[in-house]
Amino acid sequence: MRTQVGIIGAGPAGLLLSHLLHLRGIESVVLERRSREYVERRVRAGVLEQGTVDTLVEAGVGERLKREGLPHHGIELRYGGAGHRIAFERLVPGRCITVYGQQEVVKDLVAARLAAGGDVRFEVDDVRVHDAATDRPYLTFTGSGGAAHRLDCDVIAGCDGFHGVSRDSIPDGVLTEYRRDYPFAWLGILARVKPSSEELIYARTERGFALHSMRSPEISRFYLQVAPDEDVAAWPDERIWAELRTRLETVPGFALATGEIVEKSVTPMRSFVAEPMQYGRLFLAGDAAHIVPPTGAKGLNLAVADVRVLTEALARFFAGGSTEALDGYSRACLPRVWRAQHFSWWMTTLLHTFDSDDAYARQLQGSHLDYVTSSDAAGTTLAENYVGLPYEESL
Amino acid sequence: MRTQVGIIGAGPAGLLLSHLLHLRGIESVVLERRSREYVERRVRAGVLEQGTVDTLVEAGVGERLKREGLPHHGIELRYGGAGHRIAFERLVPGRCITVYGQQEVVKDLVAARLAAGGDVRFEVDDVRVHDAATDRPYLTFTGSGGAAHRLDCDVIAGCDGFHGVSRDSIPDGVLTEYRRDYPFAWLGILARVKPSSEELIYARTERGFALHSMRSPEISRFYLQVAPDEDVAAWPDERIWAELRTRLETVPGFALATGEIVEKSVTPMRSFVAEPMQYGRLFLAGDAAHIVPPTGAKGLNLAVADVRVLTEALARFFAGGSTEALDGYSRACLPRVWRAQHFSWWMTTLLHTFDSDDAYARQLQGSHLDYVTSSDAAGTTLAENYVGLPYEESL
Repeated sequence: MRTQVGIIGAGPAGLLLSHLLHLRGIESVVLERRSREYVERRVRAGVLEQGTVDTLVEAGVGERLKREGLPHHGIELRYGGAGHRIAFERLVPGRCITVYGQQEVVKDLVAARLAAGGDVRFEVDDVRVHDAATDRPYLTFTGSGGAAHRLDCDVIAGCDGFHGVSRDSIPDGVLTEYRRDYPFAWLGILARVKPSSEELIYARTERGFALHSMRSPEISRFYLQVAPDEDVAAWPDERIWAELRTRLETVPGFALATGEIVEKSVTPMRSFVAEPMQYGRLFLAGDAAHIVPPTGAKGLNLAVADVRVLTEALARFFAGGSTEALDGYSRACLPRVWRAQHFSWWMTTLLHTFDSDDAYARQLQGSHLDYVTSSDAAGTTLAENYVGLPYEESL
Repeated sequence: MRTQVGIIGAGPAGLLLSHLLHLRGIESVVLERRSREYVERRVRAGVLEQGTVDTLVEAGVGERLKREGLPHHGIELRYGGAGHRIAFERLVPGRCITVYGQQEVVKDLVAARLAAGGDVRFEVDDVRVHDAATDRPYLTFTGSGGAAHRLDCDVIAGCDGFHGVSRDSIPDGVLTEYRRDYPFAWLGILARVKPSSEELIYARTERGFALHSMRSPEISRFYLQVAPDEDVAAWPDERIWAELRTRLETVPGFALATGEIVEKSVTPMRSFVAEPMQYGRLFLAGDAAHIVPPTGAKGLNLAVADVRVLTEALARFFAGGSTEALDGYSRACLPRVWRAQHFSWWMTTLLHTFDSDDAYARQLQGSHLDYVTSSDAAGTTLAENYVGLPYEESL
């Protein structure tokens, strides 16, 4: 079997890459370990930057997104007994975010790939990368029927997330890895209940951070800062609602609507970057190369930014045969990657409680919040990162 | 002896307070442990906020400041082999800083107080605060001639710095103290040499931070990040110049001019806030209540802001007898105090090397610098704090 680009992983990065390459007339095969059903239901991010929305719409996969996505023109920072709105329409005119679940993006992309006759293989096993350092790399894998396959490629794209095989297939010593683990995790729940607020609420309390978010007019999404090794079993529904109420019902007139909890999970909070995002003909995109704590809602959006750059580099490569653009891929992506790393760290430290913080640090955090919510310049630094800085790919 | 306001300390805070009170028709006596010569030569801060300049000019003590002060409309952040200007004229139009040594401010204030017949007593010893919790507080001290004195006051102002007697005279348990020590110090030097740059240069290097500053067209001021327990004796002139060259000559075409070093000292880097800034009839202003690392040039400016608030509160008190405004003094000052604390911490962590930083933290710092020097919003957060946020006293 042969293709131009072998793509490992049918998450948003791999699927979008396959779709964008198709629009440029470049063939690809996507290999995914999980079932189609699984990836289409996997609950992950839900906040799309302006640029992500533009990218999907321009690529012709934004029809349902435009219809069902919820544009938000601000978020609330809630602390000290008051809510403070970061007003995108005033601070970053013309730019906003759109609330639309990652699994919905995946559904739209899977549908588009299959409608175009794209080759997306679910439930494949034992994917391995071979000869990435040569110009004849290939992948081996076991198909869903159990048969062994070999896929010869010009280029391989590793879009298989933080725990995927792509990055691990790169020999020791090639990558420099940067990491940071946070001393807490997020307990996330999905509940069948109308959101209690039209916009996201980022709440900082003495008991820890809480986030009120949503997926649709009927589905709310909540997060609670919990211990890093927290056991979901320790959180029966009543405890979750009680804790959410304690952390969110801190301003007059706000009452939290509750409903059936349909999903519960604990997400570790960590930061990671591997540099370069290339090894020979293997290119890493999205979580395979870097992850951020979810506070800034940057993970999915960063994957889209990587894929835009990689698509352009691959188009130039297949048009002319030069690897110059491909060799510039990592360099072109990393400034945005590190910007997102910094922003995600910044929002995380702004809003969470840290056991290691002394009284001085807690006062600084309060003063910092007061500044972000009272200075237009400081508010704009939050807003412009949150809605997404303009793309600046240079290859 | 009797006065309305007994002021401890003839630094900028105490002298300015005495002068502003005089303009409101309120009597004061200033007690200072050091000689006039000493306080007029003590090298300290040298960057005045717009509001500090305005305050001094409006109070009639800005004539020489306007003549000899050097208005600066930007600073340079130097790192990664390039200089990046934070342009105040574009980011915070109409506001700038003025380079003018703290000891020059002190000279102007001493001259103004003495010209107006003000009572400023130098070289007094053993100043003690008595009965601050009552409405008949008094000070005792030994005069320069050795005689014991008692000064009865309506109000006492503690303007005697971080190590002064005022704060220490407050009973245990009254104040909440917040502090942070940084794991480095600044080696500061004054040199007889024309500044090598028209504007201040804040340099971040792998070997530590360096600051190129100036006091006049003939006197340069430099700082080097050094170990917290650094011995000045370990820094002969040649070593200082060599290290300054290494940290500052990092951009093409920049050559450091050297000259005679006339002052050398090591300044610890720490943050401190005592709350409230009041105990009965004793009010703390400036360094007596709070200190910041010098990176953001906020110490002197914050003292001026305190004194403005205290003057207004005292004027209301002496006009009507109500202590309401005085009792609101601390509350009115603290938001600005904490803003300066946060800004000073922010600039310090942005520019210094920390031994505790891992590779991830160093990358974050680099990305943060790239952001501050490329985003107008982020650049404005630096600029607006550096030139000084507007006063917002409400008593």
